[in-house]
Amino acid sequence: MLERFKVPEDIAVRVKEAPLRETVTSVFKKMGLPDEDCELATDVLVTADMRGVETHGVSNMLRSYVNGYNDGTLNRRPNWRIVRETPATANIDSDRGLGVIVVPKAMEIAIEKARNVGVGMVTISNGRHLGMASYHAMMALEHDMIGTCMTSCPPSVLPTFGAEPRLGTNPIALAAPADKEPPFVFDAATSTVAGNKLGLARRLEQNLMAGWVGDAEGTPIMEEVPPPVPGYEGRATSFLLPVGSTRELGSHKGYGFACIVDILGGVLSGGGYGFSPGRPNFGHYVAAYSIEAFMDTKQFKRTMDEWIHMLESTKPAKGHDRVLYPGRPEAESEIDRRANGIPFHPEVIEWFRDICGELDIPYILT
Amino acid sequence: MLERFKVPEDIAVRVKEAPLRETVTSVFKKMGLPDEDCELATDVLVTADMRGVETHGVSNMLRSYVNGYNDGTLNRRPNWRIVRETPATANIDSDRGLGVIVVPKAMEIAIEKARNVGVGMVTISNGRHLGMASYHAMMALEHDMIGTCMTSCPPSVLPTFGAEPRLGTNPIALAAPADKEPPFVFDAATSTVAGNKLGLARRLEQNLMAGWVGDAEGTPIMEEVPPPVPGYEGRATSFLLPVGSTRELGSHKGYGFACIVDILGGVLSGGGYGFSPGRPNFGHYVAAYSIEAFMDTKQFKRTMDEWIHMLESTKPAKGHDRVLYPGRPEAESEIDRRANGIPFHPEVIEWFRDICGELDIPYILT
Repeated sequence: MLERFKVPEDIAVRVKEAPLRETVTSVFKKMGLPDEDCELATDVLVTADMRGVETHGVSNMLRSYVNGYNDGTLNRRPNWRIVRETPATANIDSDRGLGVIVVPKAMEIAIEKARNVGVGMVTISNGRHLGMASYHAMMALEHDMIGTCMTSCPPSVLPTFGAEPRLGTNPIALAAPADKEPPFVFDAATSTVAGNKLGLARRLEQNLMAGWVGDAEGTPIMEEVPPPVPGYEGRATSFLLPVGSTRELGSHKGYGFACIVDILGGVLSGGGYGFSPGRPNFGHYVAAYSIEAFMDTKQFKRTMDEWIHMLESTKPAKGHDRVLYPGRPEAESEIDRRANGIPFHPEVIEWFRDICGELDIPYILT
Repeated sequence: MLERFKVPEDIAVRVKEAPLRETVTSVFKKMGLPDEDCELATDVLVTADMRGVETHGVSNMLRSYVNGYNDGTLNRRPNWRIVRETPATANIDSDRGLGVIVVPKAMEIAIEKARNVGVGMVTISNGRHLGMASYHAMMALEHDMIGTCMTSCPPSVLPTFGAEPRLGTNPIALAAPADKEPPFVFDAATSTVAGNKLGLARRLEQNLMAGWVGDAEGTPIMEEVPPPVPGYEGRATSFLLPVGSTRELGSHKGYGFACIVDILGGVLSGGGYGFSPGRPNFGHYVAAYSIEAFMDTKQFKRTMDEWIHMLESTKPAKGHDRVLYPGRPEAESEIDRRANGIPFHPEVIEWFRDICGELDIPYILT
């Protein structure tokens, strides 16, 4: 993440992984979820924090999940089921189950199918928030498979040349194993930034950066602006630009990738797309590709190491000290946070104290 | 394509589809290719021109293919073969066959597998130029399938924070059928622009646009520059930026998409990646997903129409008159060019006169 959007070290409160997991699991248990689902949901959230993906970690998502269980929009014990199936595919009705719980189960089905016929691909309709997309993609790694995940989200992004949001931030994740190096893990919104970055910017009192958003007339704002964006005060909708920002810089490509996610995660699930009238949900997509179905797995992994070294040995551009590959910063974050804990904003610690008091859970974080 | 990179109407020479097809087929026949491969290669090239994708049409590619057959880097009669196979996957050694000829055959295999088990996915090593990626993806449409295609190209793109090209323009295409509307067809390089745009800019004496390229130190050039880029005169390599242009605007996303293509089209084919030492080739990837494997095909297509109308009814941004979806401009181009012919630069017509004379083919274009 860009440095300016990290919690500043001087105010950050570091929390160790173990008490965080215990606390988050307790919160889910108090919501009335089955025990194994509590462990799973906790793993998805805390893995995001460990990997430095704050936007999809405990601080940004847990309170929204708690609200969802409390107001009934999330189903505590979803009766998710396969509605159609072939040897390589399945389509699941998620029955309003939280994505962080149902999608790993869908990914297990995809992995099993990939083991049998080479590829497994599963769409999930009637879903709720996915969590970090790469969590699901990474499940494939220990099976020597490539994993991928997308989710069609509610509209918050302007199409190229458009003045109204029509597509979600629609992230795409793909994970592929290497041999000795950390796996390749790509996970990115197809908008310039994830929607949660706008919330982070507000919390950290940071300007929105040039090229992130459009104004009320749909014109990309190509200089920094303080939040909220002029013309959007008080509006419920968001106004992000597709990656590429302007047509000249290639925003039609970000727009096109967002469309692909709407089709594969939305339309192909049978549950409609992000903008579908009355669809207060998400449509997910996961797939697993068996490496051994294409080539020798050991050779693949060794070539991945070689490829990673090729990228990381690129001469750095002026003013930079190294070239990274997707997955390297996250692997380094995991090492740091395992040793030193996860840095939270004091406001998040405050919320934990409150929710622990409210739900009668012992407060053990700090 | 951006208007300024189209051949200006006042100098364009319009050529009808039928004589163009006949001429291009004759050129391939003179190269010594089997008759059916000549028809196929012609269809890939002329379809690009009909759809307004000049970068991958006759004008940009045919002379390079002729050179490749003449200097022996392209195999006239490749003995391509499946080296590994499962019910949903295959890996093909292309035996230096031109991608425009071997990849459609790989896509037919993917379609057959998708018909059998729901998904078909094929990697192709030792390949040569792909042509327009969406041609192969679109083959799935008439089978009521979603098609996708990628190709790992030789390095011409700077990684984020890098000063040397390490990844190809690595395009991604996806096609999905609609009911009454033209199909969704996305096809884009993961760099800011396709490499051929730099050649087009030179031919049309147009500046390179802001954000397209980096300078010799790897710093993104964020204003317009005349070609060639300062510091790169006479260099053989290119220096495009990933889509997103700068880290702040999201170039790590374009970089990540390019990596995905290098992995799926390159590493997973067993043929190495774009930067592999001594790899003078391309690694391709195609896949087909049966819609009926996930849901009712009629419902899918009707929802696609509805989704297209949703996008096209977006209120346009200030200064624009409509919002398009990927596939609409190309469908409109086909209608125009079927009626009025394909606009070529006089320099291209000149080349056709020359090559027809050289190969003893009747000149019938104008």
